[in-house]
Amino acid sequence: MKLSKRIQEMQHSPIRKFYVYSNEAKKQGKKVYQLNIGQPDIKTPKAFMEAVRAYDEKVLAYAPSEGIPELIDAIRGYYARYGMNYDRGNVLITNGGSEALTFIMTAILDSGDEVIVPEPYYTNYTTFIGFSDGKVVPLTTKAEEGYHYAKKEAIEALITPRTRAMVFVNPGNPTGSVLTRDEMRMICDLAKKHDFFIIADEVYREFIYDNGEMTSFGQYEDVADRVIIVDSVSKRFSACGARIGSIVTKNEELYSNLLKLAQGRLCCPTIDQVGSVALYNLDPSYFNEIKAEYERRRNVVYDELCKIEGLVCEKPSGAFYITAKLPVENAEEFLIWMLTEFDDNGETVMFAPAEGFYGTPGLGRSEMRIAYVLNEKDMVRGVELIRLGLEAYNKR
Amino acid sequence: MKLSKRIQEMQHSPIRKFYVYSNEAKKQGKKVYQLNIGQPDIKTPKAFMEAVRAYDEKVLAYAPSEGIPELIDAIRGYYARYGMNYDRGNVLITNGGSEALTFIMTAILDSGDEVIVPEPYYTNYTTFIGFSDGKVVPLTTKAEEGYHYAKKEAIEALITPRTRAMVFVNPGNPTGSVLTRDEMRMICDLAKKHDFFIIADEVYREFIYDNGEMTSFGQYEDVADRVIIVDSVSKRFSACGARIGSIVTKNEELYSNLLKLAQGRLCCPTIDQVGSVALYNLDPSYFNEIKAEYERRRNVVYDELCKIEGLVCEKPSGAFYITAKLPVENAEEFLIWMLTEFDDNGETVMFAPAEGFYGTPGLGRSEMRIAYVLNEKDMVRGVELIRLGLEAYNKR
Repeated sequence: MKLSKRIQEMQHSPIRKFYVYSNEAKKQGKKVYQLNIGQPDIKTPKAFMEAVRAYDEKVLAYAPSEGIPELIDAIRGYYARYGMNYDRGNVLITNGGSEALTFIMTAILDSGDEVIVPEPYYTNYTTFIGFSDGKVVPLTTKAEEGYHYAKKEAIEALITPRTRAMVFVNPGNPTGSVLTRDEMRMICDLAKKHDFFIIADEVYREFIYDNGEMTSFGQYEDVADRVIIVDSVSKRFSACGARIGSIVTKNEELYSNLLKLAQGRLCCPTIDQVGSVALYNLDPSYFNEIKAEYERRRNVVYDELCKIEGLVCEKPSGAFYITAKLPVENAEEFLIWMLTEFDDNGETVMFAPAEGFYGTPGLGRSEMRIAYVLNEKDMVRGVELIRLGLEAYNKR
Repeated sequence: MKLSKRIQEMQHSPIRKFYVYSNEAKKQGKKVYQLNIGQPDIKTPKAFMEAVRAYDEKVLAYAPSEGIPELIDAIRGYYARYGMNYDRGNVLITNGGSEALTFIMTAILDSGDEVIVPEPYYTNYTTFIGFSDGKVVPLTTKAEEGYHYAKKEAIEALITPRTRAMVFVNPGNPTGSVLTRDEMRMICDLAKKHDFFIIADEVYREFIYDNGEMTSFGQYEDVADRVIIVDSVSKRFSACGARIGSIVTKNEELYSNLLKLAQGRLCCPTIDQVGSVALYNLDPSYFNEIKAEYERRRNVVYDELCKIEGLVCEKPSGAFYITAKLPVENAEEFLIWMLTEFDDNGETVMFAPAEGFYGTPGLGRSEMRIAYVLNEKDMVRGVELIRLGLEAYNKR
């Protein structure tokens, strides 16, 4: 029996494919510092499970396809605290940010339609866009320029009659870069001029450092009909396993069509929505401590990275990732060597080789992403292991 | 901004679109018996929430993309009790049966590929198949023949070089029809001869009446590489809000490709998986009482339907639905009239007009589906209301 061309062209997760090596390393008794995925060690607020435990309906019934009203209202309240006002009919609850993005791409892309995505990018965008036979048009950025992508000329050079949208993960995964207000204004003007959607993946919204200001594409009223905000409890509240995301849009025609997809999968899990109500109702002061913790980690990681000779990277301003160019030709080969050949006092480290984050073939081969999702001490040790590994690797 | 043709061609849920009328009826103080959707009133086993409440991890982390091993093993144990043996690598946990079907269609269909689906069919199949630009090829059945579809000649007449699969909801939604072992054997032989996949949607597996035997396409070893079983806790354990489904297949190439899609959406909700472990570990005797309850309901519903002059329907053998032809030209118009114009002592009833369950234009216009998801007394009253309504409607 034949499988579809579409599925055969899709890749297995470029992050997860190295698990076979790290599992082997662990079997051999090595300690492996996992800096490769965005699974924070920050405790999930107790309010989540407290709300879940209090759930006491006799029948665990389908929820409304668009989400339970309590959660929609809690999310509206959260946005209202940032001066962004939405109606109930603007918020659609989804199975994580992943489903949100799949729905959006299905709603706006026919086969061959194009989406401009700054590269390196969160690798699953290829899958989300591939579902609809759409085409990722990468906007290339460089380690040497801090992965800065908000350049008007570079964006306009990629726009074609098939351009339907541009994606902004802001603050960025995997680079941690953050847009300024001026840059966002420029992007909104481009979207109006060339008539495309702005897909604003803002799941790291609160994680902006150096006293930077939290922003959102939802704050630009003149493009409200073309802004589609993707959101999630995963990173914001360290609740990745809840799988509760949302789409927020003031475009009524889009919302109505997205609802068809939501009805097709009936609903999102009821008790996770109940738990997420408690998360969105947390006092905003909750973020102060979390943000301070991530900022400390970023600082020590960056300082430690700077000790590595030949490494190229700028200090990122948000999210909890740093992407950097290593003094090796091939970061995948180096990672496999780190897991199979290297240890320092029985310890080694896992990072995400960045080639999989690029759409342009051949780019990113010497780059890596690390997620600062462990405590300061472990992060410092993890980066130290990369440094020690590089010294040994390049001396072979 | 343009939306995709694909999304614009999709329909809103044909079941849910009548809520505006039932909500209005309720506002006017009418009691509405909801026989329209498959949301059972059977209590969810307490084991589910007990397991969820006992969950005590500090960080609600991502689960493995393929599902937590405890749930995969619990599902394997459940199948083993029916003599069906699967490895861990044969079971993929999904966000309900809906995601299972979307994944399967994505994995086997390119644009224009065909799937034969007996009609009337669960309406969301159009959405699942539409995601991949596939084509539903309906195999028409009739109320007069008890919606029987296992006819070799009729099936073979629909097979083309683009046929990739045939779908069997067995026991059936919306008809309640059940395949015999001989019919399943014939279908397996056809699948081998014409090289297509058997998509076995068996979410109502235990709900077979009149001492009928539980069967599964998973019991036919000679077609193990082409059988894809879709399963779910929703109906089996009255846990629709958990959104935990699964795909079971011994086709390793298919599984490996489905895993790409699973990795794209990262994972299913962790605590719902934890709760579902407890469901699948329930003693099989759990089903005896549930089955007996549904069988009693089916009997009273069927007896009550038989009192309606001009109604055409055969007694179904499984699931918890009955589809019947009403003595009206247009069941949608009749339903809207029932909700807006009719009441008997302040009470009326909602069913699902069956036209939306047909892929062939014009068919099913006078048919309805009712789900026997309320207690016996309410079911009898609901069908009585349909009878009283019909008498008044046809006298206008």
